[in-house]
Amino acid sequence: MHIVITGAAGLLGKKLVQALLTKGFLTNQRGQLEAIERITAIDIATLEGIVDPRLRSISADISQTSELESSIDARTDSVFHLAAIVSAQAEQDFELGMRINIDAARRMMDRLRHLPQRVRLVTTSSVAVFGGSLPLKVEDSRVWMPQSSYGTQKAVNDLLLADYSRRGFIDGRSLRMPTIVVRPGKPNAAASSFASAIIREPLNGAAANCPVNPLMRLWLMSPARAVQALIHGHELDVKRLDQGRVINLCGLSVTVAEMLASLQRLCGDETASRVSFQPDRAIEDIVNSWPGNFHADYAHRLGFQANASFDEIINEYLAELA
Amino acid sequence: MHIVITGAAGLLGKKLVQALLTKGFLTNQRGQLEAIERITAIDIATLEGIVDPRLRSISADISQTSELESSIDARTDSVFHLAAIVSAQAEQDFELGMRINIDAARRMMDRLRHLPQRVRLVTTSSVAVFGGSLPLKVEDSRVWMPQSSYGTQKAVNDLLLADYSRRGFIDGRSLRMPTIVVRPGKPNAAASSFASAIIREPLNGAAANCPVNPLMRLWLMSPARAVQALIHGHELDVKRLDQGRVINLCGLSVTVAEMLASLQRLCGDETASRVSFQPDRAIEDIVNSWPGNFHADYAHRLGFQANASFDEIINEYLAELA
Repeated sequence: MHIVITGAAGLLGKKLVQALLTKGFLTNQRGQLEAIERITAIDIATLEGIVDPRLRSISADISQTSELESSIDARTDSVFHLAAIVSAQAEQDFELGMRINIDAARRMMDRLRHLPQRVRLVTTSSVAVFGGSLPLKVEDSRVWMPQSSYGTQKAVNDLLLADYSRRGFIDGRSLRMPTIVVRPGKPNAAASSFASAIIREPLNGAAANCPVNPLMRLWLMSPARAVQALIHGHELDVKRLDQGRVINLCGLSVTVAEMLASLQRLCGDETASRVSFQPDRAIEDIVNSWPGNFHADYAHRLGFQANASFDEIINEYLAELA
Repeated sequence: MHIVITGAAGLLGKKLVQALLTKGFLTNQRGQLEAIERITAIDIATLEGIVDPRLRSISADISQTSELESSIDARTDSVFHLAAIVSAQAEQDFELGMRINIDAARRMMDRLRHLPQRVRLVTTSSVAVFGGSLPLKVEDSRVWMPQSSYGTQKAVNDLLLADYSRRGFIDGRSLRMPTIVVRPGKPNAAASSFASAIIREPLNGAAANCPVNPLMRLWLMSPARAVQALIHGHELDVKRLDQGRVINLCGLSVTVAEMLASLQRLCGDETASRVSFQPDRAIEDIVNSWPGNFHADYAHRLGFQANASFDEIINEYLAELA
């Protein structure tokens, strides 16, 4: 099998490359397990730290057609399209968000559509598609009402992926990701960046600010669970997708206060005391528009799995550091 | 005020031009009633039969940027964007549907965005955005799950219009139209074309076929009510749009059998007997995926009005013929 991964140098992309190289096989379009011969990893940043004869890394802007065309060809079986402009950045730079989150994704789907084989396309969507007056626990049947350009762009993508799949152009699956926590490294331009920072920075001995009300409820997933979900989403038999191609993943619903209590319990008072609470209205407005809890009945039925507790999420991060 | 209307030679477009010329004024962006000085009517077909010094007609393809740019300028106050590729045609010609229903609409919004004034944009969406497993009466909070490319394209447009409005680029209002009945003239490529034909053709003394089960429930609106809704949607104060820019209009819920009973009651047995019942699976599949009844609470609250009965709809058509 030939697999293409965009956004491959990102947190999930890199972990997915590693997981697929370790796993060694995936289900092909004929429903048979097949060895992974090649992974083409595309990212505007450089993918570092993974060496494998099956891996070919390309530094490219996916909004450039020629790069896309040379990377995806008649031998491509599956694409994991993870490249995206994150929420706060898409809000700041409208044109960039539209170009990458909608136009490049659509060009990708058009490229796949014109190949002789039917390519399986797994991509990520976001809880940012929801907004407005919401119940405490959101049903799969809930209308989308994005309160950000990022959420809008992801919802547009979801609609196009579903229609391209319905027409048989591609075999698409869009996984609506909870907020991924704990992200290593530096804060990024996502509005949800603080959700990782308030755990990661205190563990590094650094201060971190929580810009939202501690009673705000978040819908979370650890990086390892997210990579499992991407692979599970790829492997699902198309016959099981009877409620469509867009799947609200199951996640863990916790308040910021519960996250910090978990940090204090596992890592001590001193670590937990490094978090301050200075509200940031811009961040709070965006994150507040995202639901903090979901039924996710469809995802449960399809066998996706959520983290059992926030302790599990912290422990996964601690194990990575070790 | 300068007003631009696309799709102006279509059924609603032409009636809207007439209604606005008769009315003579609309609310401007400062909330004041202002006389209509000019209406620019754009359509790929020619708008015939209306002569008025305030009306300028342009035959143009709205997917051509230059035509759009010369028609919409710094003096444009409001745009009614009605041009679209209808459902069955967008299903047959995917590229054409994408080019007009998404790309041209987006180019329109980008044109408005780069003007110095904030333009009010009224456009139409469709019940074709809904699909999948649906309750008998659809709530405004229901997720969109289009089962056609037309429905997909309209939903994409709704999302973009809402985001462009949220960002202050435009002042958009998308009205999700019921099926418009009775359409005069010839059948068109809309999957719902039969809903008009089974009334219009028998009244012309011609045979008509009903391609769906007579117990199928449709969500209908007469052309006059639809034009009223377009004007009402334009006039609404932005402060009232507290549930977003996309409004499921209120309509009339009737079965095909009830429509034909109304025809028989008002126009006699001989007229009603001209309808045959040969199922067409392709049409039935598309129309079946559209809900036949809606709560439309938001539209009711905003003062939109539905037809009182199907008799009213037939009588409106008979009055037009007279």
